[in-house]
Amino acid sequence: MQRRILIAGGAGFLGSHLVDRLLRRHDVEKIVILDNLWTGTRGNLAHIDDKRAAFVEGSAESFATDERFDEILHLASPASPPWYMRDPIRVIQANVHGALNLRNLLKPGGRFCFTSTSEVYGDPLISPQPESYRGSVDCTGPRSSYDESKRCTESLLFECNRVYGMDIRIVRLFNVYGPRTRIDDGRAVSNFIGQALTSGVLTVYGDGRQSRSWGYVDDIADALERFFWRDHIDYIGPLNIGNDREIAVVDVAEYITKLVPGTRIEYLPPVPQDPTNRCPDLTLARKVLPGWSASIPYETGVRETLEWFKHIVRTSEAVPLAPAPVFLDR
Amino acid sequence: MQRRILIAGGAGFLGSHLVDRLLRRHDVEKIVILDNLWTGTRGNLAHIDDKRAAFVEGSAESFATDERFDEILHLASPASPPWYMRDPIRVIQANVHGALNLRNLLKPGGRFCFTSTSEVYGDPLISPQPESYRGSVDCTGPRSSYDESKRCTESLLFECNRVYGMDIRIVRLFNVYGPRTRIDDGRAVSNFIGQALTSGVLTVYGDGRQSRSWGYVDDIADALERFFWRDHIDYIGPLNIGNDREIAVVDVAEYITKLVPGTRIEYLPPVPQDPTNRCPDLTLARKVLPGWSASIPYETGVRETLEWFKHIVRTSEAVPLAPAPVFLDR
Repeated sequence: MQRRILIAGGAGFLGSHLVDRLLRRHDVEKIVILDNLWTGTRGNLAHIDDKRAAFVEGSAESFATDERFDEILHLASPASPPWYMRDPIRVIQANVHGALNLRNLLKPGGRFCFTSTSEVYGDPLISPQPESYRGSVDCTGPRSSYDESKRCTESLLFECNRVYGMDIRIVRLFNVYGPRTRIDDGRAVSNFIGQALTSGVLTVYGDGRQSRSWGYVDDIADALERFFWRDHIDYIGPLNIGNDREIAVVDVAEYITKLVPGTRIEYLPPVPQDPTNRCPDLTLARKVLPGWSASIPYETGVRETLEWFKHIVRTSEAVPLAPAPVFLDR
Repeated sequence: MQRRILIAGGAGFLGSHLVDRLLRRHDVEKIVILDNLWTGTRGNLAHIDDKRAAFVEGSAESFATDERFDEILHLASPASPPWYMRDPIRVIQANVHGALNLRNLLKPGGRFCFTSTSEVYGDPLISPQPESYRGSVDCTGPRSSYDESKRCTESLLFECNRVYGMDIRIVRLFNVYGPRTRIDDGRAVSNFIGQALTSGVLTVYGDGRQSRSWGYVDDIADALERFFWRDHIDYIGPLNIGNDREIAVVDVAEYITKLVPGTRIEYLPPVPQDPTNRCPDLTLARKVLPGWSASIPYETGVRETLEWFKHIVRTSEAVPLAPAPVFLDR
């Protein structure tokens, strides 16, 4: 069967990696890449030379077409705190209203895939977090637009499944990094690399011993491919996807200072409410996706990301950097 | 100043009581009562004879007008589990998309009032629940459309306040009962009364010792009036509103059997996941609304409600009853 696929947020960091993988499929007739270029960039798709791929500049919540799709992937949302905190209403629109709108474009029997987030766990009281953990999110707080719109979209899609039998797949992504992250993304790895390549001073907040679980984008896209593409599956989600190896923020910073000569670390006061940990319980992922693991060590991933950023810095006239104070990965 | 007010869900149980109170205000020039009559009824407004009130049949998420309002009250959502579980997508639309749409109809400097719910606390791990409790909601569960859309709408409105300075008021309502509840509403008090007036058999699930905090509608509307109408206030919410007197379900059933001769209680197996308690911590409400308390005892409230239901049963040809198994109040 030749399939038509819509990927919303397909010009984004993770979205564009999924587009690359969709184009490797032989059962795909057409891919509509929908993106309003809020955080996505045309550059992320510049390498694509495939007649099956069609880019449409537009938003998930308002996109209209007579076309219907066999598979819809909804990734249309910024994922970095400085970005989603800047325009929270639009984040809620992109996620919830986006899902409400896009589901109407699904063929009967089609599949709707959604990238939710570990932020549905809020500031977790347990670690690692299994999918059954109900979370600790302040639904009135300054980070809630992202957390709550992802939670609400999960609810919406599970109801679409329960009430209308819609085929859904929902993952909860933990921190992802790698090539095609925006240099002004605002999260730790890209910040450190951006700083190393420009000012030479890497800012670490607090003592830097707070840990993060960073998943390299190839590992994460590999998991999504295994979960989203599969036609018959017993478990539709929510499924934690990430790297469960916890690394101290300062270890990554130190590693980057070794890779880029002449750089140094500067310690600044801790960011308020910066969570001390967020780590996936991957028990279910290992069961649902046999053979998959986040196996790329951070040293390899950081080196690859650094090479990519070097290329971007060389080829860009203006390199925007995230404004300080920068929010570290949650 | 003469004000224009929009109340979405104004033909509903609680909404129509608020309409009555809005019409007592002398600073109100016009009230647009928006309701799609999903759970609201024209009967709830039949007694209104005031030229300032205009009824519009329409939905919060799609209502369009050139008019702009000084105050918007967003109550457009079913509140009873059998109702919201029947059409969960529409519940999410009514709440989240409803708020997204209605906020565009606010005059600059206008006020947006929203009735959120104690269900944002999910199955609480502490009792009573203060506003700071982050809740325990399964965002993929069969009750999540209501809980999560209320949480997401809270988030949306707090962001509108934080980012755009929009004046907001948000309450979290615990169980409310009283005249104008639908007889097929599906929650305990109205079920018991409906059963007493028809079959004569009141069904209690489990041993009936599970407690509920029922707020009589006059007490609750009184709190909303004090909170929503006030122009200058230090605290915008979220504010718990309810009755903190916990009553065993079976006590209410027994009281009703005494009021309606010839009726009896039948015990059925417990409903799965029926929470054993939900009780408001009203510390903040007492501080923010000095002088207010939920003072009407359940005996008075139940008698008043019974009288109203008798009138409805007498004047209606067909009296719909909630389908079994009925979900008790959460």
